Amino acid sequence: MSAERIPDPCVLVIFGASGDLTRRKLLPAIWHLNDQGRLPEQFALVGVARSPMDDDGFRNYVAESIRGFVADSDAGAFDQFLGKLSYISGDPRDPETYALLNSHLKNIDQTRGTNRNRCFYCSVPPQVYLEIVEQLGKTGMHEEGSDDGWVRIIIEKPFGHDLGSAQDLNWSLHKVFAEHQIYRIDHYLGKETVQNILVFRLANSMFEPLWNRRYVDHVQITAAETVGIEHRAEYYEAAGALRDMIQNHLLQVMCVIAMEPPSAFDAEGVRIEKLKVLKSIRPFSIGEVDRYAVRAQYANGMIDGATATGYLQEEGVDRTSKTETYAAVVFTIDNWRWQGVPFAIRTGKRMAKRATAITLQFREPPHLIFQNSDVRCSTLTIRVQPEEGISLSFSGKTPGPDMDLGTVKMDFNYEDTFGVRSPEAYETLILDCFLGDATLYAHSDWIGKSWELLMPIQEAWSASSAANVPSYSAGSWGPSQSASLLAGEGRQWVEL
Amino acid sequence: MSAERIPDPCVLVIFGASGDLTRRKLLPAIWHLNDQGRLPEQFALVGVARSPMDDDGFRNYVAESIRGFVADSDAGAFDQFLGKLSYISGDPRDPETYALLNSHLKNIDQTRGTNRNRCFYCSVPPQVYLEIVEQLGKTGMHEEGSDDGWVRIIIEKPFGHDLGSAQDLNWSLHKVFAEHQIYRIDHYLGKETVQNILVFRLANSMFEPLWNRRYVDHVQITAAETVGIEHRAEYYEAAGALRDMIQNHLLQVMCVIAMEPPSAFDAEGVRIEKLKVLKSIRPFSIGEVDRYAVRAQYANGMIDGATATGYLQEEGVDRTSKTETYAAVVFTIDNWRWQGVPFAIRTGKRMAKRATAITLQFREPPHLIFQNSDVRCSTLTIRVQPEEGISLSFSGKTPGPDMDLGTVKMDFNYEDTFGVRSPEAYETLILDCFLGDATLYAHSDWIGKSWELLMPIQEAWSASSAANVPSYSAGSWGPSQSASLLAGEGRQWVEL
Repeated sequence: MSAERIPDPCVLVIFGASGDLTRRKLLPAIWHLNDQGRLPEQFALVGVARSPMDDDGFRNYVAESIRGFVADSDAGAFDQFLGKLSYISGDPRDPETYALLNSHLKNIDQTRGTNRNRCFYCSVPPQVYLEIVEQLGKTGMHEEGSDDGWVRIIIEKPFGHDLGSAQDLNWSLHKVFAEHQIYRIDHYLGKETVQNILVFRLANSMFEPLWNRRYVDHVQITAAETVGIEHRAEYYEAAGALRDMIQNHLLQVMCVIAMEPPSAFDAEGVRIEKLKVLKSIRPFSIGEVDRYAVRAQYANGMIDGATATGYLQEEGVDRTSKTETYAAVVFTIDNWRWQGVPFAIRTGKRMAKRATAITLQFREPPHLIFQNSDVRCSTLTIRVQPEEGISLSFSGKTPGPDMDLGTVKMDFNYEDTFGVRSPEAYETLILDCFLGDATLYAHSDWIGKSWELLMPIQEAWSASSAANVPSYSAGSWGPSQSASLLAGEGRQWVEL
Repeated sequence: MSAERIPDPCVLVIFGASGDLTRRKLLPAIWHLNDQGRLPEQFALVGVARSPMDDDGFRNYVAESIRGFVADSDAGAFDQFLGKLSYISGDPRDPETYALLNSHLKNIDQTRGTNRNRCFYCSVPPQVYLEIVEQLGKTGMHEEGSDDGWVRIIIEKPFGHDLGSAQDLNWSLHKVFAEHQIYRIDHYLGKETVQNILVFRLANSMFEPLWNRRYVDHVQITAAETVGIEHRAEYYEAAGALRDMIQNHLLQVMCVIAMEPPSAFDAEGVRIEKLKVLKSIRPFSIGEVDRYAVRAQYANGMIDGATATGYLQEEGVDRTSKTETYAAVVFTIDNWRWQGVPFAIRTGKRMAKRATAITLQFREPPHLIFQNSDVRCSTLTIRVQPEEGISLSFSGKTPGPDMDLGTVKMDFNYEDTFGVRSPEAYETLILDCFLGDATLYAHSDWIGKSWELLMPIQEAWSASSAANVPSYSAGSWGPSQSASLLAGEGRQWVEL
């Protein structure tokens, strides 16, 4: 076991402290880190939001949010944790808020010894990011001291809605913060299973030799949800599946699968290799989009025995909306390792099953020595969620005096194996930010390149009329058009 | 599924019909084949032994032997099966026995339409084989007709006790039977798991690429038993572990693991490739034996909480016996695939556990990108018995915010997967013989070569005094000397 890394004394400032993400993900993550002794002794959390609350009100709010986890910890430790919390009520657009925050932070540094180390977490809608960044700059709160002190900022997705807006956002960020201070979060990279892909590939000598065009026929990356858009019509109408899932999460996963081994598992090494993957992806023109990408919207259907409403009938959705709730894209990587191996990515809401997984299908054996037997292709499936784990499916002999082949499966289940809770992605990522480790964060170059790759799709889809958006029954595996993306090559989407 | 192969009409003659092997293995196997409709409609079984019985007596004996299996079949089918049985009481050394048998077979051919197809099964001690073969020759029962009829003979192990005696046996056999008529049984080759090794390797494209010196560090083949010699002192004293297990079963398994892919899974293809493996094994001189081979005898010890008597104290064992109950040999294969990859074989009685398994240990990854992590080598284990299956053990990320590695395991269990009974090795092998398929039988060339390889060990051990035979506690994993066979290369025997 490596020694546990404990961050320097520091303050975490959360903008949007009364929001949904903070309540569901950030506060539980901070609590777990504290509970496991992974936070420094000198630590403080400052919540900032418009909701009128005082410190005690915020502590009650936090206590309420994480009540479920606290049951198994002792009351003393919990009170001690709450004692590290404070709150500033203020509009993130109002300079007064920052004046208050600035003097509050100076006070904390003196009383708690947090040594001017600060992490600002922007858990707010994208349109508010820039205001926060600008105000932090104006008050000098972005400045790292001349000693070892550090100031970092965590930016939530979405990071822009197209190439231009992402570039603008980066430009505005860089007016105040240096790149090494900026942590663009992609919670998929914090998932244990996604990190495990690299361990699986590179801490063992038996998988990497197979990880290339000589043995892999094609790769599928699926993120299927059974839920619809729930109450997020406003956000989703402007985003759609391509922006919401593919530009960030699934392209990141694809990079982790496809990248060359870096010489070390650190931010610089991983950043360069992931960027190289994006740069190797063959761009397609707007005219080629229909050959490589499919979008669709869910129609009425059944999921788990219940009726599900079609997307166009959801509350808050424009009846003539073109926004896709399903997107599938087949990418081609032009490099020595992957030439000729399609990477097929798909994601959708209201699909048959909730499942995020990567499947590598291996080539047919070059020659089958067993007469009268069908060839089946072996597959390796990495399940990101649920039931995190890895399985291999391959041909085995069916019991009996004849040499008949059947499909057999080997399985490794993360939870069964370790019998301990996997940390939430946000725990890993927040701790890494405190430690100054950006290995699992998205770099601006990567984000720019990923938007660039998707621009032709965005443009083609935006130019095409709503009548051209296919539909799929809620509870299905997506539109029939999606099958043809792969079928041209004699391949099929896997059922997960 | 391939079409089920049904043999031609035929008669099976079992010499030693009242013996232990016949009762425990052969009769149940024949019954199962019959029950599953795998025998021809025109089939007859003739038992030959000295025990005085008539046909009905033999039918009762058979019914008794297989009573346990018959419960789940209907009584009519069972009676029909018993109706195909008959018996000849006679000494296998007495020519009169063969005169009776000859006219009995002619009679069966006429009444049952078995068309002069015959399989003779020698389920008798080796010293009786030759007598049977000679007598079959004298009476012309070995002769295949000019039409498609066939006559085959199945020979049980041991096939000789050294190179000279095996050659003599072959020479005597060939005076009467042609090689294509001779089926030398090695029941290990009939085991589902052993057959599955080739399916696993060659019906999938993802294992064969790893199956060579570039990725495999070394291979271990273990056959450990917890039982002692039981009531077979006379046989065992003359045999020992090397002859009893390594010369036949374990060298066969090693060949299946190490062989090149044949172009077809048939007798000719498999025979040639297995023989090539034996021919590639580097022979050692008598002087080198101590470097590559270890023998030992079990001493008193505990197994499963019960006291076990040492070998030299067993009834019927010479108090100054040199016979080994444990043998370990490390072989080197001089060919492109395996150069530098040791194949370590060990077998013993009164070991810690009953387990037959093959373990491929893969090399260390060439470079570990994860700081502060220990390298572990991945292993692939093929369990022949018990719990037939395959498991992979490799490095995975342990859950938590640090990048720590742990060992994880993927498992495939034959019985769990298929939920059906695996046929006993004898079912597969007897059916194959009826079908004229010698793929899973041992060829004379192979047997000769395997004895040749072991001759230096036999000679060195036989020349060395009893005082030089190490001992190991019953219930342990063998003598400490055995560790040094591998330790020289920084390798360790696996615990199964």
